[in-house]
Amino acid sequence: MTSTARAVVLLSGGLDSATTLAMTRSKGYAPYALSIDYGQRHHAELQAATRVAAALGAVEHRVMRVDLAGIGGSALTDRTLNVPTVASTGIPITYVPARNTLMLSLALGWAEVLESTCIVVGVNAVDYSGYPDCRPAFIDAFARLAQVATKAGVEGRTMRIEAPLIAMSKAQIIQAGIALGVDYSMTVSCYQADEQGRGCGACDSCRLRQDGFKAAGIADPTRYQAA
Amino acid sequence: MTSTARAVVLLSGGLDSATTLAMTRSKGYAPYALSIDYGQRHHAELQAATRVAAALGAVEHRVMRVDLAGIGGSALTDRTLNVPTVASTGIPITYVPARNTLMLSLALGWAEVLESTCIVVGVNAVDYSGYPDCRPAFIDAFARLAQVATKAGVEGRTMRIEAPLIAMSKAQIIQAGIALGVDYSMTVSCYQADEQGRGCGACDSCRLRQDGFKAAGIADPTRYQAA
Repeated sequence: MTSTARAVVLLSGGLDSATTLAMTRSKGYAPYALSIDYGQRHHAELQAATRVAAALGAVEHRVMRVDLAGIGGSALTDRTLNVPTVASTGIPITYVPARNTLMLSLALGWAEVLESTCIVVGVNAVDYSGYPDCRPAFIDAFARLAQVATKAGVEGRTMRIEAPLIAMSKAQIIQAGIALGVDYSMTVSCYQADEQGRGCGACDSCRLRQDGFKAAGIADPTRYQAA
Repeated sequence: MTSTARAVVLLSGGLDSATTLAMTRSKGYAPYALSIDYGQRHHAELQAATRVAAALGAVEHRVMRVDLAGIGGSALTDRTLNVPTVASTGIPITYVPARNTLMLSLALGWAEVLESTCIVVGVNAVDYSGYPDCRPAFIDAFARLAQVATKAGVEGRTMRIEAPLIAMSKAQIIQAGIALGVDYSMTVSCYQADEQGRGCGACDSCRLRQDGFKAAGIADPTRYQAA
């Protein structure tokens, strides 16, 4: 790999993807950050992505819009469903159908245009919490698809889908990010953050994040809504 | 399969996808038609899709918008590139990066919401003409991905990606569609159709279509722009 190799990094604006971007840059890639506006309940996440992309040195940051809200089926995109505040079992209602497949597909299209053969996504075992498309088997299957779906693959180059956080705990992710200078106060993980990007402190995502800072022994810089 | 099994059918408004919809319905599926507005040069194709969905008995027809034009790289979405009118070799400039991956991903999301385990797409060997994502290997790889990416797959049901036209010639596709009552004058295949949906008669897609009707021995009902 030369120091100018390009990587497309999926950037939601949350803790995991910010860490992923920092790791990708530290490996010497030129990182191109891609955020997807898929009809989220709030835009604080996308605003966080813009701040994070600039702070962590993305060469370029694009936001692509796709109207996933039209298909419904998830508490994250369907306003008629409530975000649960108790721990869930099985596949939770916050699961967005085919979300990671779709986001990786958009990243794949941009990678082809950029002549990049590397896509980096911040899925991990903790975030899995029942989502089928956060598992190693999913990443592997997408890599095989990317190989046959693209011009680069047809021409014999290897398309890589990297998920550097996949086997890390939330605490390890936070420690890795802190070592790389990530300012987590910029990031938004909450499923129902307010307009200022402050977390609810009660949803699955907020709980995982709080527990991660505790386990890492690092003060939590997250801004929360007043109780 | 029961007579009420649902299938999501990708419907562009062209000859192939109209035939695919007719075949899916004739097999006893309840077809849900999905069209993707990915920033095409013209909307005649989407208008054709709406007519075709109604004429061929789709239970529902949805149009999802995704701003693929933002990533550029194809003559079909980038207005600074010209659509070629001479036969091309290799991967042509009309190739839209990751288009079929993206369209199948959107279909997969809707299939999950509909609790459907069948997605039907009208790719075929003739349309391949150098597009990596029109090959059997691509369809197979997407099926493997769908199996690990979805709630249905995790729960042990089989996700099927059907490409019934994949080994058919254009003439065979036309003959199959005529036998099922498809009115091809409703469909638009041209890469640069005018506002009325009339073909240019010169692009790759128009040429494949004209040759197909000739080879099938069926009068071509396509409306063309004045020379």
